Amino acid sequence: MSDDVALDLERQARIGLSESIYCAGKTPQQIAAALTGARDAGTTMLLTRLDTAGYGALAADWRAAIDYDPASRTGIYGAWTQPAGPARVAVVTAGTTDLPVAREAARTLAYHGQASREIADVGVAGLWRILEHAEALGAFPVVIVVAGMDGALFSVVGGLVGGVVIAVPTSVGYGAAHGGQTALNSALVSCAPGVVTVNIDNGYGAACAAIRVLRATGGPHSSTTPDLIRG
Amino acid sequence: MSDDVALDLERQARIGLSESIYCAGKTPQQIAAALTGARDAGTTMLLTRLDTAGYGALAADWRAAIDYDPASRTGIYGAWTQPAGPARVAVVTAGTTDLPVAREAARTLAYHGQASREIADVGVAGLWRILEHAEALGAFPVVIVVAGMDGALFSVVGGLVGGVVIAVPTSVGYGAAHGGQTALNSALVSCAPGVVTVNIDNGYGAACAAIRVLRATGGPHSSTTPDLIRG
Amino acid sequence: MSDDVALDLERQARIGLSESIYCAGKTPQQIAAALTGARDAGTTMLLTRLDTAGYGALAADWRAAIDYDPASRTGIYGAWTQPAGPARVAVVTAGTTDLPVAREAARTLAYHGQASREIADVGVAGLWRILEHAEALGAFPVVIVVAGMDGALFSVVGGLVGGVVIAVPTSVGYGAAHGGQTALNSALVSCAPGVVTVNIDNGYGAACAAIRVLRATGGPHSSTTPDLIRG
Amino acid sequence: MSDDVALDLERQARIGLSESIYCAGKTPQQIAAALTGARDAGTTMLLTRLDTAGYGALAADWRAAIDYDPASRTGIYGAWTQPAGPARVAVVTAGTTDLPVAREAARTLAYHGQASREIADVGVAGLWRILEHAEALGAFPVVIVVAGMDGALFSVVGGLVGGVVIAVPTSVGYGAAHGGQTALNSALVSCAPGVVTVNIDNGYGAACAAIRVLRATGGPHSSTTPDLIRG
Amino acid sequence: MSDDVALDLERQARIGLSESIYCAGKTPQQIAAALTGARDAGTTMLLTRLDTAGYGALAADWRAAIDYDPASRTGIYGAWTQPAGPARVAVVTAGTTDLPVAREAARTLAYHGQASREIADVGVAGLWRILEHAEALGAFPVVIVVAGMDGALFSVVGGLVGGVVIAVPTSVGYGAAHGGQTALNSALVSCAPGVVTVNIDNGYGAACAAIRVLRATGGPHSSTTPDLIRG
Amino acid sequence: MSDDVALDLERQARIGLSESIYCAGKTPQQIAAALTGARDAGTTMLLTRLDTAGYGALAADWRAAIDYDPASRTGIYGAWTQPAGPARVAVVTAGTTDLPVAREAARTLAYHGQASREIADVGVAGLWRILEHAEALGAFPVVIVVAGMDGALFSVVGGLVGGVVIAVPTSVGYGAAHGGQTALNSALVSCAPGVVTVNIDNGYGAACAAIRVLRATGGPHSSTTPDLIRG
Amino acid sequence: MSDDVALDLERQARIGLSESIYCAGKTPQQIAAALTGARDAGTTMLLTRLDTAGYGALAADWRAAIDYDPASRTGIYGAWTQPAGPARVAVVTAGTTDLPVAREAARTLAYHGQASREIADVGVAGLWRILEHAEALGAFPVVIVVAGMDGALFSVVGGLVGGVVIAVPTSVGYGAAHGGQTALNSALVSCAPGVVTVNIDNGYGAACAAIRVLRATGGPHSSTTPDLIRG
Amino acid sequence: MSDDVALDLERQARIGLSESIYCAGKTPQQIAAALTGARDAGTTMLLTRLDTAGYGALAADWRAAIDYDPASRTGIYGAWTQPAGPARVAVVTAGTTDLPVAREAARTLAYHGQASREIADVGVAGLWRILEHAEALGAFPVVIVVAGMDGALFSVVGGLVGGVVIAVPTSVGYGAAHGGQTALNSALVSCAPGVVTVNIDNGYGAACAAIRVLRATGGPHSSTTPDLIRG
Repeated sequence: MSDDVALDLERQARIGLSESIYCAGKTPQQIAAALTGARDAGTTMLLTRLDTAGYGALAADWRAAIDYDPASRTGIYGAWTQPAGPARVAVVTAGTTDLPVAREAARTLAYHGQASREIADVGVAGLWRILEHAEALGAFPVVIVVAGMDGALFSVVGGLVGGVVIAVPTSVGYGAAHGGQTALNSALVSCAPGVVTVNIDNGYGAACAAIRVLRATGGPHSSTTPDLIRG
Repeated sequence: MSDDVALDLERQARIGLSESIYCAGKTPQQIAAALTGARDAGTTMLLTRLDTAGYGALAADWRAAIDYDPASRTGIYGAWTQPAGPARVAVVTAGTTDLPVAREAARTLAYHGQASREIADVGVAGLWRILEHAEALGAFPVVIVVAGMDGALFSVVGGLVGGVVIAVPTSVGYGAAHGGQTALNSALVSCAPGVVTVNIDNGYGAACAAIRVLRATGGPHSSTTPDLIRG
Repeated sequence: MSDDVALDLERQARIGLSESIYCAGKTPQQIAAALTGARDAGTTMLLTRLDTAGYGALAADWRAAIDYDPASRTGIYGAWTQPAGPARVAVVTAGTTDLPVAREAARTLAYHGQASREIADVGVAGLWRILEHAEALGAFPVVIVVAGMDGALFSVVGGLVGGVVIAVPTSVGYGAAHGGQTALNSALVSCAPGVVTVNIDNGYGAACAAIRVLRATGGPHSSTTPDLIRG
Repeated sequence: MSDDVALDLERQARIGLSESIYCAGKTPQQIAAALTGARDAGTTMLLTRLDTAGYGALAADWRAAIDYDPASRTGIYGAWTQPAGPARVAVVTAGTTDLPVAREAARTLAYHGQASREIADVGVAGLWRILEHAEALGAFPVVIVVAGMDGALFSVVGGLVGGVVIAVPTSVGYGAAHGGQTALNSALVSCAPGVVTVNIDNGYGAACAAIRVLRATGGPHSSTTPDLIRG
Repeated sequence: MSDDVALDLERQARIGLSESIYCAGKTPQQIAAALTGARDAGTTMLLTRLDTAGYGALAADWRAAIDYDPASRTGIYGAWTQPAGPARVAVVTAGTTDLPVAREAARTLAYHGQASREIADVGVAGLWRILEHAEALGAFPVVIVVAGMDGALFSVVGGLVGGVVIAVPTSVGYGAAHGGQTALNSALVSCAPGVVTVNIDNGYGAACAAIRVLRATGGPHSSTTPDLIRG
Repeated sequence: MSDDVALDLERQARIGLSESIYCAGKTPQQIAAALTGARDAGTTMLLTRLDTAGYGALAADWRAAIDYDPASRTGIYGAWTQPAGPARVAVVTAGTTDLPVAREAARTLAYHGQASREIADVGVAGLWRILEHAEALGAFPVVIVVAGMDGALFSVVGGLVGGVVIAVPTSVGYGAAHGGQTALNSALVSCAPGVVTVNIDNGYGAACAAIRVLRATGGPHSSTTPDLIRG
Repeated sequence: MSDDVALDLERQARIGLSESIYCAGKTPQQIAAALTGARDAGTTMLLTRLDTAGYGALAADWRAAIDYDPASRTGIYGAWTQPAGPARVAVVTAGTTDLPVAREAARTLAYHGQASREIADVGVAGLWRILEHAEALGAFPVVIVVAGMDGALFSVVGGLVGGVVIAVPTSVGYGAAHGGQTALNSALVSCAPGVVTVNIDNGYGAACAAIRVLRATGGPHSSTTPDLIRG
Repeated sequence: MSDDVALDLERQARIGLSESIYCAGKTPQQIAAALTGARDAGTTMLLTRLDTAGYGALAADWRAAIDYDPASRTGIYGAWTQPAGPARVAVVTAGTTDLPVAREAARTLAYHGQASREIADVGVAGLWRILEHAEALGAFPVVIVVAGMDGALFSVVGGLVGGVVIAVPTSVGYGAAHGGQTALNSALVSCAPGVVTVNIDNGYGAACAAIRVLRATGGPHSSTTPDLIRG
């Protein structure tokens, strides 16, 4: 069965992002095979889209070796610590239901050594909520904006700050929200210049993009995957 | 040929909006038949989507009897005057290319006796532009918001004012703008409560809705079609 | 956890509509946090899209403090009373399956102090059903029309009455109904002038729009959220 | 070049409808080849979607041998006469811009020996227009309804008459009309039972379906293609 | 609760098709209200889209009064008998999974007094299967063709027989079948002239259309709803 | 300017298909740069989607060096000869308007040394047309089927012959043909097993696939690009 | 009930592919009827899309007579043996979640007597994974490429090898993956020439196409369905 | 007329990107009004989507004051100089027809003081073309990848380099390319982590995003709009 999985363990060296495992649609056996690969290589591993049922279906030994967070549906295999430095990424959400996606981004950032600051529930229907954060947001090199429905927050933030603005449209909403497609399209045709986007609900991808940005700055080596020190 | 056209001349009495002629796709002969019907009935008539080529293809006599505005592609047949009273409708546009649609709304309002105030080029990428109009906008019973691309202005205005907010998505933009569908969907899933919308580029429809609102207020009879005083 | 929620409690003062909580996709903890915010602020609160499972998952104290209606999936927190005055809004449905959406509109109206009159099951396949209500409908300043499938009722009502006609397309139907998109598109391209629409199944939004209209009339202060008098 | 064309000349014998030539996208040479085939076989031939440019590009001899109607973009090759009997098909249109499609249906019916009656410009925004024809429509075995935009007329007619109702959605409209797709979908999800539809703008197909219906009645042989009596 | 339902009991007199109840999305209470209406009026009633769970949720008295067929998800309330005469409608299916839809058509026909003949599993991948039925099919005034996936059978039958061909696209298939939309589109753009279509999976609608056709023939009164003779 | 073009001249050695130039959207200068690259490398070159305007815009010297075919919009640069051997590929078309795409396939095959046989205008509305070719088609290792509209011919041929069946959906048709998408979807969900497809109107791609098949057979080296022997 | 099923048992003789049974949407009774038909005819039979629930619902006797593989959801009725010869088809997958579809292809090939070689988890994000297989892949007459998400692997393989490349897009992914439509479209517009595709998740169809290719080569009779030797 | 235009001249101070004018859909008068605003404010101005017809329609004085580039359809008003420093952004294109979009990005970068390096025509069908640039690309902080059709290049580059990868899907291709939507979707679901995207054909937006990234690095003030030194 382990022939099913060909881990790209050199990815960290090549592009600075270690391979993570997207767990949706994978059997417990396939996830275990990937974890075995990580254990044999002596590395940590990030698991995404691992819902509580999927986590529960893993063997007890694997569950014990994983730091699991149900809200973001992420797990981290191996020893790691929360990053201590100042947050260089802000993660802004339009509404409460956008939080799971925002937390996936924050956990992915943390796994790669980057602290982040969450600013929640500041959708534009109550414009004062985002405006009172405008100056603070201007100090972040990267702002991840997580919003569903009309995605109006992408353009508002993009017009307020000069940092990199990464939109994460979410599948929040119904009817003409089209499962997040409307928010995605709003991000793509944002009237604010230079807003970029990732796929619907893809907090992981937004965090990876943020890490690419921070590494491009040539700053200290804060964006690295923790080595695995197995107990 | 006049059997092709069955004018609904009682529409004014029934719902307070006189029948107008949507000219796109009609031959000059069909437009002339409608105008003849209006002339015979002694009424004025509004013509929409009459581009300069279509206007030019009409007989000279008809052209002379029409007050034609190329920017909004509207024509008004028969005697009428610009409304004199204070504007009860604001028409807000996100960008310069939204103006033809906004002008179609303004002309339709004027034809029905309603003055309007245009506030142009206040898209949210430069948020200060709309914010400096916020208090003024709050005084209008109806605000028509005309915007393409991401339609973020609909939610921003909807969250700022308590009047009726009518979105008019426009076909401005390319790619993921999908000919106005993205702006339309943004209006439909606006995070601001109670925003309503009409079809893409439908300035005429927004104006008709505004007139329905103003008439519902029971105010003085300002929203009526001018009688035709033929010379 | 309460940092997840930033209530827009000034919304009532700003636009005359108090913030309501859209419960789909929210955890019981998040809903409780919002309710706590309302309780601390001494206000009532409307909860929408709260299905019976979601209601059942709330703590017993919260459930007891909520006037819950399973048909419309709405709950009202705090003391309030059904409005007593004459109905100024008609809520018309094409078929029996459109009723939950219509009831969401009616409950939202009632929460804001507006009585409404329901006229049910008058789809155009049996045209006499709507025609026998035509005169009565003409007396309402606002008519909310709730219909799925082909949405033909929007145009028929829009051509019969002069009041504000707000279409609420519903997701009733299958195949080419496309989950309500066909009815929505029919509303947008209605051949009756000045029909406006809200999102699919959005009875709440239609009611908010109606309240905007009624307030625009400058009538007595009937459209206000009840103050919370906690026992 | 004539190998490009394989006429199905036995179609009349097999299914009672002679092969017609859909001219859009065909070169003048290909159309001429088809006409040659008809001439050699001694039959008449119906040409559809032959716009004035396409007609003008044919050789003068062919043009002279064709009874061409620019409004419906149809041509009939060979000797034929307008049917004399009473109309058994009604062709109803919602608006003036639907007429070219309606005329294509009427010409196709006439070519097959069926008279039809046109009832024009009776869209539901002015409901009285269709209602005053309701009783007359009830006498036709087949009613072809031609409508664009919201296609509300399909359901209204389908609920009024017991004959066969064939919807022809048209590409009239803009924005959410989606080139006729909205009208088509409305026909498909009509709340009136037993309405059938053909493709957008397909007046020819509706007429062919009507002929199938009339032939199914076992009435006299009125629905046959005229023999060609070449002069 | 019975105000929710406004039965169109005169529909039989008006268009020859009695109102049936589409049960999907209706509560047991709403279905019971409709049945009560039928009982009070002394009529039979056809129920469609009544799956086994929905049937099981009805009160035992109602269940006993209904002739229920789980394959077609239809129920008939009141006394009725299978039609005895020769079949005038053929119901052809491409594959075994199309049968539930075909059976809905057959039951609807039978309810209205029309016998039908089923020809099953004759998809074009094995062309001989339909060809050996070609002559027999030619004798039916109406052929209902039920097919999913590519819907190729619609055109093949439409090219073989001269009767009325009513396509019923089904939601059979996956991926690019798009829930029946591909089969539906194939019906609409069929290369065989005069094929008409109804909505995806709408066996009921196809039967209603067939009844309209048969009644249009002026034959004996075979297409009528049975009177209810309650015991 | 020649830096714009990086020819993949080793493609022939790598995958047996020489690079061809897709000319739509390229300036005459860019096409000339590609031709210069071919001339310098001493190879022939196939140009596709070169309409008559594009061909006419090339310099006279280039035009003279190209064997241009307007029907298929293809050009061949350099010396080559029509293949002499027996046809191993059949190219079948449903209608006359599918011929340009079929000819693009045939020219691409010929350029690579493969003769083909064209069987035109055999759509399934007249089923006898394809059936009388069934036995002959069974002898070809590859059958390319070119059809628009409902694409029913793909399944019919796929059920008749055991060779490789490559569908080429075309953009022929209107309305629900959706520019060839319906025919494409029909090919993808064909009820005949093992039918494969290429993009809409992509005769070139179908021919390349056929060449891959023929080469995979290990037969004599008939599928090679002609060397360029410049005069 | 057995009239529901009309097996095409001559398919093997006609096109070299025996009829298989697509089990999704079929009742256990319908599947049993098909198996009975196979048993009576003395043939084997391939069952596809038979999930574990569907398999479990069959009678024990039928279950015992079927070689069932849950990963690929396939079953083979009757005696058969794994093919012994060298693999002539490579089945390449981009990721672990693509394996069920790949296994359906491999099982279908094996059923028809063709061995295949699986090369798993070689998506282009770690390009070295596919490159180290490039030379080996070049030796296969047919390469089936199974990939979801962006389907980039189709073009990379198509540019590396000269054999027949059959894309199988999978429904792996979320958001803009659109259930496999994005991967499908990528296959259709692949920049590598001559790539062909089958429907989303259609491993069975890709295998059938591969068998058509291998048979077209005129090689030994390796691609035949095993005779059934009932015990 | 100048009321139509409300320039956001503080945008440079606020977010570091000066307002540019999107010229598609604007009249020459509206463009001139914007230029007048820039002239009065003493700033330079970038004009995008200014095709040769639009440029030609400007008054001669304005034309003379603009540095116009037809390939990228961009104009720069006022004095500016090409940036002299080393390129920090690579602009990679898959094919020759992607160049206009790539040049729009390069010009926008240059206008803001950033040199870029173009790497053209390196699509993945000839994988060696991009691989021989892999090491060089790894040195750029930002890589803009411009590709249409299947967009496979986005994932290949994203898997090779650790810098910020900004996808620009283009509308190159036909059929299932869907005007760039397929390439856009491929970017969104890229299997390489952290790829971000902008709208179809939006070279301007990609450049603005790149400038945000470079400014986030805190490097020397290289990304600023040139001051206007009017002559």
